[in-house]
Amino acid sequence: MSSILFKNAGILATEGNGFKFIENGYLGVEGKIIDYIGTEEPKKRYKEERNAKGIILAPGFVNCHGHSAMTLLRGLGSDLPLDDWLHVMWPVEDRMNEDDLRCGMELAIMEMLSSGTTSFTDMYLMPWAVADTIGKSGIKANFSRVMQAFTEMSDDDYDSYYRVKETNDLIKNYHNSFEERLKVDYAIHAEYTCKPTVVRRCSEDCLEHGLRMQIHLSETKKEHEECKERYGKTPTEWFYDLKCFDNPTLAAHCVWVEERDMDILKEKGVTVVHNPTSNLKLGSGFAPIPEMVTKGINVALGTDGAASNNNLNFMEEIHLASIIHNGRNSDPTVMDPTTVLKMATINGAKAQGRFDTGSLEVGKKADIVAFGMDAPHLIPNFGTEALLVYSAQSSDVKMTMVDGKILYENGEYKTIDKDRVYEEVKRSILRLYGKE
Amino acid sequence: MSSILFKNAGILATEGNGFKFIENGYLGVEGKIIDYIGTEEPKKRYKEERNAKGIILAPGFVNCHGHSAMTLLRGLGSDLPLDDWLHVMWPVEDRMNEDDLRCGMELAIMEMLSSGTTSFTDMYLMPWAVADTIGKSGIKANFSRVMQAFTEMSDDDYDSYYRVKETNDLIKNYHNSFEERLKVDYAIHAEYTCKPTVVRRCSEDCLEHGLRMQIHLSETKKEHEECKERYGKTPTEWFYDLKCFDNPTLAAHCVWVEERDMDILKEKGVTVVHNPTSNLKLGSGFAPIPEMVTKGINVALGTDGAASNNNLNFMEEIHLASIIHNGRNSDPTVMDPTTVLKMATINGAKAQGRFDTGSLEVGKKADIVAFGMDAPHLIPNFGTEALLVYSAQSSDVKMTMVDGKILYENGEYKTIDKDRVYEEVKRSILRLYGKE
Repeated sequence: MSSILFKNAGILATEGNGFKFIENGYLGVEGKIIDYIGTEEPKKRYKEERNAKGIILAPGFVNCHGHSAMTLLRGLGSDLPLDDWLHVMWPVEDRMNEDDLRCGMELAIMEMLSSGTTSFTDMYLMPWAVADTIGKSGIKANFSRVMQAFTEMSDDDYDSYYRVKETNDLIKNYHNSFEERLKVDYAIHAEYTCKPTVVRRCSEDCLEHGLRMQIHLSETKKEHEECKERYGKTPTEWFYDLKCFDNPTLAAHCVWVEERDMDILKEKGVTVVHNPTSNLKLGSGFAPIPEMVTKGINVALGTDGAASNNNLNFMEEIHLASIIHNGRNSDPTVMDPTTVLKMATINGAKAQGRFDTGSLEVGKKADIVAFGMDAPHLIPNFGTEALLVYSAQSSDVKMTMVDGKILYENGEYKTIDKDRVYEEVKRSILRLYGKE
Repeated sequence: MSSILFKNAGILATEGNGFKFIENGYLGVEGKIIDYIGTEEPKKRYKEERNAKGIILAPGFVNCHGHSAMTLLRGLGSDLPLDDWLHVMWPVEDRMNEDDLRCGMELAIMEMLSSGTTSFTDMYLMPWAVADTIGKSGIKANFSRVMQAFTEMSDDDYDSYYRVKETNDLIKNYHNSFEERLKVDYAIHAEYTCKPTVVRRCSEDCLEHGLRMQIHLSETKKEHEECKERYGKTPTEWFYDLKCFDNPTLAAHCVWVEERDMDILKEKGVTVVHNPTSNLKLGSGFAPIPEMVTKGINVALGTDGAASNNNLNFMEEIHLASIIHNGRNSDPTVMDPTTVLKMATINGAKAQGRFDTGSLEVGKKADIVAFGMDAPHLIPNFGTEALLVYSAQSSDVKMTMVDGKILYENGEYKTIDKDRVYEEVKRSILRLYGKE
């Protein structure tokens, strides 16, 4: 059981709808919980006291969209057109076994922890194989067995479909497992990979289980326009009509959503997950994030998979989300640091259905990232929020804590054996590609 | 005198118009010069031999546009509209003294070295005050006293103008100083801050001295359109007509250049300096870089000043230059890693008139950056160039060498006393702003 007091720390605490920066503050963690925040030293004694002078404590980041084990496909087919790239990806994914997934996932978790991520949302294959890996790593995750169905299905076909069975098994065995750090979501890959009856059934099942839904939505122009041709409605309207949004939903990308789509997303409380690096690198485009923020849509951030990113550095997503919309809108004021830091933290936590984290407040889970502020690029400081989004880098992350446990500190992973993972990744790469 | 052999290194060497990656190679440095590159161990003995297994040696980066001492204004007025932001900047710059400039410059050089920059181009104030600072730091720089003239000038007025005198003094005292690491450039701030007669005189002077010219060009739409209203020509046409481009010129930004402008830039051999972070953050827009590359224009990269960036992390510019144009052009193939790495290295060296650096070749200056490849985000490696531009981060830079001397290694600066600089910056900030 943790019992730690951080002394003399900068603390990015919460005030109203935004942040309040506390200088030379005290933050106490008892067990999994933040039990003290203040400018006075608490009377209570903690087992461990740390001088956190020069450190800023911020809420841990929530990476709301990804395919973690795709670290094993990092850089594969870089700079190919999208369709060619997919045809390089798929055969490798077909060859992946459970061991590959485990070590690919561990590599991903290492990357995420070292850039301050305390919780992530995952949509991928064989999740039972990785559930233990996530659980043992100490990080939090909402994960799913992704649904794809290129043909319509009868009720019988649906009930016996392996993806449905796997999701059911997953819910039974892993939902709220590892002291509730793991949550199982439903996931429908996308409009262009799923027939309507399947989407409707899947949406109903999700509602019945009271779970959350992950989807890809209007990522590319092609996808968006072809859906309109096929069904006479946008992907958003299509998912809406099939009752998908009756579930609390995370919609990844939303690059090509239209005005009426945004109204639906707002009305149904859908979270839009912005993946700036992936959208830029793959040439998908610019999601209308400032417009969505103005409409009051809950926007969160994601890295997407390492195959299209090509890393899981959450600080890069924060940086990009802060600057690219200024460029796109010819206006340096359209995105502000507070908005982006909320996307990176509390908005993501809400999207995952984790209402006990996402901010540094007494009574919330101790999901904390500690920034060292000693690097030349962090001097001077005319505003901590601006400094974190525009100037800071993942190497400034000195510690990542989840549920009160330190999982990463100064380059060291406390729950993952880096050397073992590297050996296993090497073996997997050799097996998957016939090369090191 | 350095005498170092790097053994078992990955080497991003040169082949034809691009790169050749050598695995398990040897690179020898004698004095300032690379005197060996190969896959066999050289017969010659070096004083120092380093096992560089797991290290990739790449050409040092050339940061072709910036205002280094503006590190002291980092984060000031973040998220203000451009005009308001400038009105926050200017009074602080007016208050700056030589001591401020020195320590601001040192802070900048630390940042640049730690992200692999071996040479930079600078346009700012009181350059005599910082020339020694640059010289002593061991880094290379082309620097200038920037010309601004809001009123027309007679020849007499021009000759006695303090900016002209300062440039003349600078050339006399510092051009090719510190063993040719320092070069003096001419600099004309921009069309909207300089009257035509002054631009013409300045261009003639530059030509007479055989030096290089730095300018800001078509950074904002306002600047571009107002010039057309004022003179009936684009800024590029205006500078062309005033003979500016008879000099080898670095034109920063070029966000709003038109087709005919690009033809002029190509014809006159002007280097376009792309500053993606600054252009995005300030809301200036997207320079048509892929179009310029296709036309054969020499494109280099820059950070701009820390006031508009808000750091001098060159790896971020490389990353952005690699992905934002894909997003802008809805095509993941418009920018490739080789093109971007050339912008970051050899194209920049050419732009600075430094033909003895910018690539790892025998006989060239040993301006080298060493990447550690052990971080989780650099595994696996399906192509070193792609890995460097899409996945690597400045924290992967483990060593930066200029003219054969190691200036930065594993977080340590060899020629700059970090603690002293931090103290001086603290004093400057207190003096400039009345706060710490």
